[in-house]
Amino acid sequence: MFAVVLKEGGYSGQATGPRIEDAADWLEAAELPMPKAGAGQVVVKLRAASVNPSDLHFIKGEYGQPRIKGAAAGFEGCGDVVGAGAGAEGLLGKRVAFVAANAGAWAECVLCDAINCMPLRDDISDEDGAAQIVNPLTAMAMVDIAAQAKTALVISAAASQLGKLMIGLAKDSGLDTIALVRRAEAIAPLKALGASEVLDVTVADFADDFTKASRALKPRIFLDAVADQTSEQVFANMPNGARWVIYGNLAGTPPVLTQPGQLIFMDKRIEGFWLTKWMHSTPPADQMRVVSEVQARFADGRWHTDIATRIRLADVVSQLAAATQLGDGKVIIRP
Amino acid sequence: MFAVVLKEGGYSGQATGPRIEDAADWLEAAELPMPKAGAGQVVVKLRAASVNPSDLHFIKGEYGQPRIKGAAAGFEGCGDVVGAGAGAEGLLGKRVAFVAANAGAWAECVLCDAINCMPLRDDISDEDGAAQIVNPLTAMAMVDIAAQAKTALVISAAASQLGKLMIGLAKDSGLDTIALVRRAEAIAPLKALGASEVLDVTVADFADDFTKASRALKPRIFLDAVADQTSEQVFANMPNGARWVIYGNLAGTPPVLTQPGQLIFMDKRIEGFWLTKWMHSTPPADQMRVVSEVQARFADGRWHTDIATRIRLADVVSQLAAATQLGDGKVIIRP
Repeated sequence: MFAVVLKEGGYSGQATGPRIEDAADWLEAAELPMPKAGAGQVVVKLRAASVNPSDLHFIKGEYGQPRIKGAAAGFEGCGDVVGAGAGAEGLLGKRVAFVAANAGAWAECVLCDAINCMPLRDDISDEDGAAQIVNPLTAMAMVDIAAQAKTALVISAAASQLGKLMIGLAKDSGLDTIALVRRAEAIAPLKALGASEVLDVTVADFADDFTKASRALKPRIFLDAVADQTSEQVFANMPNGARWVIYGNLAGTPPVLTQPGQLIFMDKRIEGFWLTKWMHSTPPADQMRVVSEVQARFADGRWHTDIATRIRLADVVSQLAAATQLGDGKVIIRP
Repeated sequence: MFAVVLKEGGYSGQATGPRIEDAADWLEAAELPMPKAGAGQVVVKLRAASVNPSDLHFIKGEYGQPRIKGAAAGFEGCGDVVGAGAGAEGLLGKRVAFVAANAGAWAECVLCDAINCMPLRDDISDEDGAAQIVNPLTAMAMVDIAAQAKTALVISAAASQLGKLMIGLAKDSGLDTIALVRRAEAIAPLKALGASEVLDVTVADFADDFTKASRALKPRIFLDAVADQTSEQVFANMPNGARWVIYGNLAGTPPVLTQPGQLIFMDKRIEGFWLTKWMHSTPPADQMRVVSEVQARFADGRWHTDIATRIRLADVVSQLAAATQLGDGKVIIRP
């Protein structure tokens, strides 16, 4: 079967961010043997895969698990279960959203653990189904951090698909959001989604604007995909008890921690969020409740996936880099 | 009465560390009216005061509370209660260790909240009594973080008085300690106190030495008084789940956070510790138990206060800077 595979194995030891100049630096086309499902596994015939920042970090060797040279890339998609091992027969023939925990989604057929597949409701499209797990569950789990803390929140890279999901969810949860963006054109759409404030980090007045918004709304959770010096300044201008929750490293330029005293005297802290850890530490019943809520939100239109562009699986090596630089929507890969 | 008072008020907006070149930059001698105890307060006639890094941060305007120009400096000491307001009469005539929460210990007589005074056992000397609260309670509370997490710990600036208290306490709690120092002469004394490993951060092999010790002992708590780039590298070489607990800022040079990905994928986090917050958030019964244990440890010799030098209250402005640069022991101020 056709697959887009990794040219290198292991970790790169770098942290340069998810931007790629040419996918051929990291990926190549290959013919792989058809996967076979072992116990608790299924084989999914791909309908659509989505491209997340974690995929790009991973192919560059800077994600939380090592690459396997020659294995297919890609974590997330949806498709039809065409093979099932012992204990997973119930999924045979079903259309499912999946996460391929060891990668492999950018291929005609994908080997997954049954536990990482969720049958899709008929009223959810293949493209929404292809981006049904990583971003939506991350959004649900991270906005819940702010909901538990009963506080307004700050979201960086807020024009991303994940940012938009979180803004809508925060609004429905009655939480105020300060959304940070890098382009003036992003402000109006995010206000329309329900953000309380949308601030452009690239304008000269940003620091003053943020300080004013922070004083008014007193956000104590900062969900941050960037982790650069601007992020650090945002954190430094948040009130007592603020938590800087880093879940991405879009910048690739490490911040200076200018205010260690705030950790001491203002009870602030810096931590991370990783969906993989959330999945391992959250009881299955709680996860199922979250998954049902995710599908309900997509089915009734409260959430939807903005598509930047669609590319063919056969064209990933030649077209992926340009596709990922188009804008804030998702890149969808079709067989 | 004679007092050593602050020349400036408020915050400096700087973070330059606790080192001072000349105390006259920040302090001056003054005659103040004798304080009067209000409800819940006492007046303590000073026997001895101690000098902590927090005192030096405070007089420079870089501690967690604002200075009051013209008010006496100094947080900690011991003495005799010579005046008491309503509800505090039980302390009259008692010798107490105290923390002056709003500063004021470097004076002939000190106004304190009764709740921040603890009657001293007869078998504890005035000099041990003058350093009975800030360092010992910090040591008890911070080593308890490691004890709760059931892990080995790393201690920076470990040749400090606080570091030595923590090494002895960790040993008695059955916890392995990696002690970090800046001078080869400090290694043998800290090994004698019970540190599992003592490493000199100034030698070329430090990074390798630390990595080896970290792999062997798997410390997940780093109690850090320095917060510089060496601290950050130590944290980066600690295992999954490590917590960097910053309680001081001796360096005054902010670190670069080189590995934000470790917060995400390795479940690490960065936080602070402040005794004032611990006192406000720990139930009084638990605090009393800790205070009794502190006095028992000083009384039976498991802990003792190393004295670098003693200076007269009248000489603080002229002699404090030199005294604080003498070595690792405490500077004691006598009336």
